[in-house]
Amino acid sequence: MATAVAAKGLEGIVAANSGICWIDGDAGVLAYRGIDIHELAEHSTFEETTYLLWHGTLPKRTELEAFSKQLAAARRLPPEIIRLLGSFPKTATPMEVLRTAVSALSFYDPNEKAVDHDSNVRKSFDLTAQIAMLVAAFDRIRKGKEIVEADTKLSHAANFLWMLTGEKPSATATRAFDVALILHADHELNASTFAARVIAATLADIHSAITGAIGALKGPLHGGANEAVMRMLFDIQKKGADPVEYVRGMLAQKKKVSGFGHRVYRTEDPRATHLRKMSEDLGRSANNAKWFEMSQAIENFVKAEKSLNANVDFYSASTYTTLGIDLDLFTPIFAISRIAGWAAHVIEQLDDNRLIRPRAEYIGPEYPAKYVPMGER
Amino acid sequence: MATAVAAKGLEGIVAANSGICWIDGDAGVLAYRGIDIHELAEHSTFEETTYLLWHGTLPKRTELEAFSKQLAAARRLPPEIIRLLGSFPKTATPMEVLRTAVSALSFYDPNEKAVDHDSNVRKSFDLTAQIAMLVAAFDRIRKGKEIVEADTKLSHAANFLWMLTGEKPSATATRAFDVALILHADHELNASTFAARVIAATLADIHSAITGAIGALKGPLHGGANEAVMRMLFDIQKKGADPVEYVRGMLAQKKKVSGFGHRVYRTEDPRATHLRKMSEDLGRSANNAKWFEMSQAIENFVKAEKSLNANVDFYSASTYTTLGIDLDLFTPIFAISRIAGWAAHVIEQLDDNRLIRPRAEYIGPEYPAKYVPMGER
Repeated sequence: MATAVAAKGLEGIVAANSGICWIDGDAGVLAYRGIDIHELAEHSTFEETTYLLWHGTLPKRTELEAFSKQLAAARRLPPEIIRLLGSFPKTATPMEVLRTAVSALSFYDPNEKAVDHDSNVRKSFDLTAQIAMLVAAFDRIRKGKEIVEADTKLSHAANFLWMLTGEKPSATATRAFDVALILHADHELNASTFAARVIAATLADIHSAITGAIGALKGPLHGGANEAVMRMLFDIQKKGADPVEYVRGMLAQKKKVSGFGHRVYRTEDPRATHLRKMSEDLGRSANNAKWFEMSQAIENFVKAEKSLNANVDFYSASTYTTLGIDLDLFTPIFAISRIAGWAAHVIEQLDDNRLIRPRAEYIGPEYPAKYVPMGER
Repeated sequence: MATAVAAKGLEGIVAANSGICWIDGDAGVLAYRGIDIHELAEHSTFEETTYLLWHGTLPKRTELEAFSKQLAAARRLPPEIIRLLGSFPKTATPMEVLRTAVSALSFYDPNEKAVDHDSNVRKSFDLTAQIAMLVAAFDRIRKGKEIVEADTKLSHAANFLWMLTGEKPSATATRAFDVALILHADHELNASTFAARVIAATLADIHSAITGAIGALKGPLHGGANEAVMRMLFDIQKKGADPVEYVRGMLAQKKKVSGFGHRVYRTEDPRATHLRKMSEDLGRSANNAKWFEMSQAIENFVKAEKSLNANVDFYSASTYTTLGIDLDLFTPIFAISRIAGWAAHVIEQLDDNRLIRPRAEYIGPEYPAKYVPMGER
């Protein structure tokens, strides 16, 4: 059998044709359906961006209204799922809980096995609405607070903050969170999206694909990086250390500084540009710019010392903390956004499907190795 | 960025180095750690084969005893998981239930986040024991029967049949089931195993990887094929049709006949050889060879007509049915076996890890597409 040897981790290998996301790593360009992420971050909303990802074009006004209405109407969790969340240990990590609850949601889907285009779109509305609700609801439950009912009049971003905190969010906080959702909504064949496509390509249901994607996102090399950034910032504060000296010490010990560098980008991650500004604006408007300033000092130092650029994770850490969001919700929030891209990729995969089944380069004992009977071992 | 274009579905692309499984699709060879599957099917047990997959060599007697003891000792399900199974809808598919329950098991793992070699091996014992128990326990629950307590004195194969039926299985049934477990234990980078490696490579926990693998196996193009074979046999019986005429009709309508052909094998799937014999032996010894005979007639016809060989799924259908196993447990049984290979691959991936992150060939709207303001759309 003819096989082509791939680089480790499939680096640089094209695994699918896709019309969803364009990344030019050398030029630092990210675009959804051809539209630059900078334009979307400035002008769009999570709802509009999700429409764009799923349907391929920007919606007309009536289309966006119908789309937003359908997404808001999908803000329903079966009572069994609420009970399930209550039965989980309060010490469970939110990502384990999300993975398990999304898997359980398929029990209550009216056509669990259907994988046709229309079914996948319908289920994508449900999952996009429900993932945000699950994250907020479990956080309330583990803190011994009442679950907040969804408000269908609010935007997706505002409804999440409302269900998380029980307070109607400010326009500034809502917009910041909305932009964060836009920035994280898709990133081509990242590990979780690729996992979703591998699973979906077996014609398993979309709940299986998204459950697997959540599992992949949970990994520290993928969704967990902004958590690591924030743990570092907290540690610097706790020790009363100088940020630059602290990071200099890390580099001297050959430790990896989270939030820098990217497999794909050779320049600044275009998402970092917006998150840096958001971190600064939120910090200054809350009269609490310490996390931003600490981050900026570290960024300047790492850039000068190692020529490494901040990535999407670096400033999302201080942004989310300034928004009052717990450390272990950073990765679930990534999922709240990335479900838009996961769904787009699952829909695209199944519109022109083929089982994803690569080969391995065999490096084990030479065939045929003998089956030595027990007495002779 | 230099990228290499891959065939659709990554066909023929090497995605990893692996010392676990050797497949020569042209010669019809399958070997675990270099040892031919025919030798293992004849002489080995699921426990010994699992040891081989995880450790790379056949165990000495004391090693096998210790391994089997540890696997039997891992036959424990937390009471919360039993309650969870009881709370699921009785109409849920066993694969949804298995995916959700395995995801929930991580809540009760003493070190959920640990992904070092020893932790992965320890968790692999737990998961291998627990997956079989979960499948048996949910089947009892949905049928309104008492859950059967695990018997640590039985082999893995016998304990599953015991927990499923509440009767101590015959030596013939135990051996047949044990051989089926050996035959399905690994198959290189099939879709579920590849999904497990993609997820594990983010340094997510092994529960995430196995949950994703179960989701992939659930797909009709992967684990679901023997179910489709059996549905066809049932339909032939129900209609009182002649098997050959029935399949001739399917081919005339360009319908795919499940259980034939394979992405990798160009000859007979070596696992089919054993399952054919097992199907015949079990059928004849139970005085119920009708499923075997129907299968054989179809196999001969498809082989003559389309030059397609029976694959692993074709005769496992009649084998499991003759063993008295329900149709919708076929894929869960695949998982009961394949966990051995999934675990081996996750352990191998993390022993020399790199994030698996391919690229896509962009086929969407040309960059930069304009963000047209709402009023101008």
